[in-house]
Amino acid sequence: MVVKVATYYLNCQQYKFQEIEKKKLNAIDTLIEVSQHVGNFMKEFNPSVRYDLQKYYPEILKMHIEYKRTHIINNIKSNLQKGIEERLYRTDINTDIVAKLYFLRLEAIFDEDYFPHNEYHTKDVFSEMFRYHIYGIASKKGLQY
Amino acid sequence: MVVKVATYYLNCQQYKFQEIEKKKLNAIDTLIEVSQHVGNFMKEFNPSVRYDLQKYYPEILKMHIEYKRTHIINNIKSNLQKGIEERLYRTDINTDIVAKLYFLRLEAIFDEDYFPHNEYHTKDVFSEMFRYHIYGIASKKGLQY
Repeated sequence: MVVKVATYYLNCQQYKFQEIEKKKLNAIDTLIEVSQHVGNFMKEFNPSVRYDLQKYYPEILKMHIEYKRTHIINNIKSNLQKGIEERLYRTDINTDIVAKLYFLRLEAIFDEDYFPHNEYHTKDVFSEMFRYHIYGIASKKGLQY
Repeated sequence: MVVKVATYYLNCQQYKFQEIEKKKLNAIDTLIEVSQHVGNFMKEFNPSVRYDLQKYYPEILKMHIEYKRTHIINNIKSNLQKGIEERLYRTDINTDIVAKLYFLRLEAIFDEDYFPHNEYHTKDVFSEMFRYHIYGIASKKGLQY
């Protein structure tokens, strides 16, 4: 049952991404909408939920991580390519490397050794990371936008 | 003996950082010099060396990781603070969070699941990551520099 609920939940995530895509926003606005959505998701999916999953349903946590690895890296890569085509992102970005680096940073938010959740709010780390990301990829035109 | 050589090696790293500091460069030039140095260090310290250390001298790898964690995070944080004071970096940076995120990305370069060393050159991933970092933290004045 828990596996079914988790699968349904992940499908909803994918549906949400498709909904955002249908709006035909530019790369930066898409990134902002997706990030707001991911931010809300992070709020729900706090470190104690992760801890419980690891303890009681490790196979669901594994499914969640696999989902993120395959779908989210591809989503980030598409967003980078879109932004480069729209000249809102730097044209010299290696989309493959940057997508993976950004994804690994998303993972880092949950690293208890670095961001123990009694000292850091997941949302603060997330928004700091988001600013760091958008400035890191934006072109001059993108920064003015 | 291996521990002594490794300790000596890490002391040399720290000495090199102090040498760069003595030059009294601004934050961006310091970051470039340090990164060139770290880039060379990465070239020497390739993933197969890491693999051998993990296998034969795990305590040395642990020492190396601990060194990086404490010294490098502090070095990054100082560089961020210096750049903010010089108005070369954005003034809204949370230096604590960004220093840790950058450090975790340095670690990610060695993640064989994402950057297998038969497909990626450590130096390419490093220079992509460096550009992504500098654009991510620079102010308008810093970008013009």
